[in-house]
Amino acid sequence: MAVYTHLGAEVLAELISHYDVGALVSAKGIAEGVSNSNWLIETTGTAGANTRFILTMYERRIDVRELPFFLGLLDHLAAQNCPVPATIHDRSGNAFRQLDGKHVALIEFLPGVSVDEPTPDQARAVGTALAQIHTASESFAACRANDLRPKDWQDLFAQCSNGAMTAIDAALPEAIARYLPDLIHMWPDHLPTATIHADLFPDNVLMLGDRVTGLIDFYFACTDIAAYDLAVTHAAWSFSDDGSRFRADISAALIGGYTAVKPLSPQEADALPILARGAAMRFAATRTFDWINTPDTALVARKDPMAFIRRLHHYDALEHKAFQTHI
Amino acid sequence: MAVYTHLGAEVLAELISHYDVGALVSAKGIAEGVSNSNWLIETTGTAGANTRFILTMYERRIDVRELPFFLGLLDHLAAQNCPVPATIHDRSGNAFRQLDGKHVALIEFLPGVSVDEPTPDQARAVGTALAQIHTASESFAACRANDLRPKDWQDLFAQCSNGAMTAIDAALPEAIARYLPDLIHMWPDHLPTATIHADLFPDNVLMLGDRVTGLIDFYFACTDIAAYDLAVTHAAWSFSDDGSRFRADISAALIGGYTAVKPLSPQEADALPILARGAAMRFAATRTFDWINTPDTALVARKDPMAFIRRLHHYDALEHKAFQTHI
Repeated sequence: MAVYTHLGAEVLAELISHYDVGALVSAKGIAEGVSNSNWLIETTGTAGANTRFILTMYERRIDVRELPFFLGLLDHLAAQNCPVPATIHDRSGNAFRQLDGKHVALIEFLPGVSVDEPTPDQARAVGTALAQIHTASESFAACRANDLRPKDWQDLFAQCSNGAMTAIDAALPEAIARYLPDLIHMWPDHLPTATIHADLFPDNVLMLGDRVTGLIDFYFACTDIAAYDLAVTHAAWSFSDDGSRFRADISAALIGGYTAVKPLSPQEADALPILARGAAMRFAATRTFDWINTPDTALVARKDPMAFIRRLHHYDALEHKAFQTHI
Repeated sequence: MAVYTHLGAEVLAELISHYDVGALVSAKGIAEGVSNSNWLIETTGTAGANTRFILTMYERRIDVRELPFFLGLLDHLAAQNCPVPATIHDRSGNAFRQLDGKHVALIEFLPGVSVDEPTPDQARAVGTALAQIHTASESFAACRANDLRPKDWQDLFAQCSNGAMTAIDAALPEAIARYLPDLIHMWPDHLPTATIHADLFPDNVLMLGDRVTGLIDFYFACTDIAAYDLAVTHAAWSFSDDGSRFRADISAALIGGYTAVKPLSPQEADALPILARGAAMRFAATRTFDWINTPDTALVARKDPMAFIRRLHHYDALEHKAFQTHI
């Protein structure tokens, strides 16, 4: 959550001059994204066009060879009226450019704010929006492998010493030992795939009231099990932040919103419990790794992996009951 | 350069409802300020009024008892057509409110971007804008003592060990020993005062072309020698960033722009060399203190105090020649 690079007025104005968006009026570095720097840009605009944009500079963690996938996906989904920001192409048609040796892209600014305490109506709208992008992605030809699958969670944990994990919470290595082997061995491999968002937390959803105005930050997007994306979104939305409380009303509304657009097959519905335990394990894995590898003094807030171990226990205890849509 | 507090949609919408600015449309945490968190807020607006605002949450370093001074100054200057953002008062007339136990203020959003490489015409406009706020502040009744005067620089250095300073650069303690005693003993005490900005670096000035559209971040503002503010601005603008190169054209334009609105008395002109050495020492002092007290791993970029020691040497070598307006 920082801006890693300073861009002065002269450099920004030169960059903007390559796009058909008018002249630069304002630029504010915004505190979004952990692997890139972002600016909210305002321009004088051109007839009928937008005057506000997000400029993203890719700083790290993103392999720039994958930019055509990420930006092409935004364009594909936006063209099909999904609430995602379209990429603004420069006058030569490029979706991204180079600046100071780094890659940058200009994307549409979307209104809306991220909710902390979703209502069921909001969760339903999010489920619907997720189903829309899965459906729209059926005609998206590009593929990107998910690099955070069960074996990858195992690799991340393997890089964390047992002592360091126990220092976070003695229950952490216990839960990994209890759940991870089954997840690896029983992970479904014949369920329908889609281009999935894979990180649809509330801070990646912009809303105005009950309406989803924007799904953002697609930099974990990949080709993987569609129902796993529903499970990730379920784990992200259906609990209190610390994972201690399951919100059955949010859960039901989210799944109801999704299935109203894109019904689950019996196989997908059957797999939801293991996919949800996997989703919880995936975030426990990255949070554990980041916790141990982030210095105490860094300004980046460390996120507690136990919040997702608690979700794992909920999913284990509830099994299919966590996914009933009529409660 | 960070946002220290998370504010969700619900909390923001409730806050905004206390102001006559319409409903919340967007909120982006912006990477400005080191002692507070800032959001760029968009609302639906009310007839004829603005739809964009900066929300500031005061996190630390600012004594909230001084908020009436800072916010009152913005209102006073804005009312006199200085290019500063006015405070938006809530429906009860309050210039600031409490949120989550912290103080927040809503201020006007101003267009413009900060330049890295000013042209003489831009520097002239900045000098003029500075003179305008000094003139407009003559009718501002409130006072605030400057807590970064020569004795305070000495106190800051005294909290840094010689070893730690030598580790930055052996020339640092040498320069302090050479210049600081004279600054303390010969600091002028009969020059005209004003309400001064005291930190008018390029990143605190918004411009569109050659026009100053906003002077921002008045949280060092205080009652002190008017010509010292010109000296601070001179030290901030008239050199390459690292202090190695003096830009005589920028210097002349800045002073020319200032004196065209507010001529310097002979006493003020005579004092410019010592005031400028003082300005350079003031930033060397805070940068040295912050350098030694900021962990290596913090995301806040440390700023090199030597950039201002180099300015000090320039000022010492050039004396009055640094301030000639016709070169």
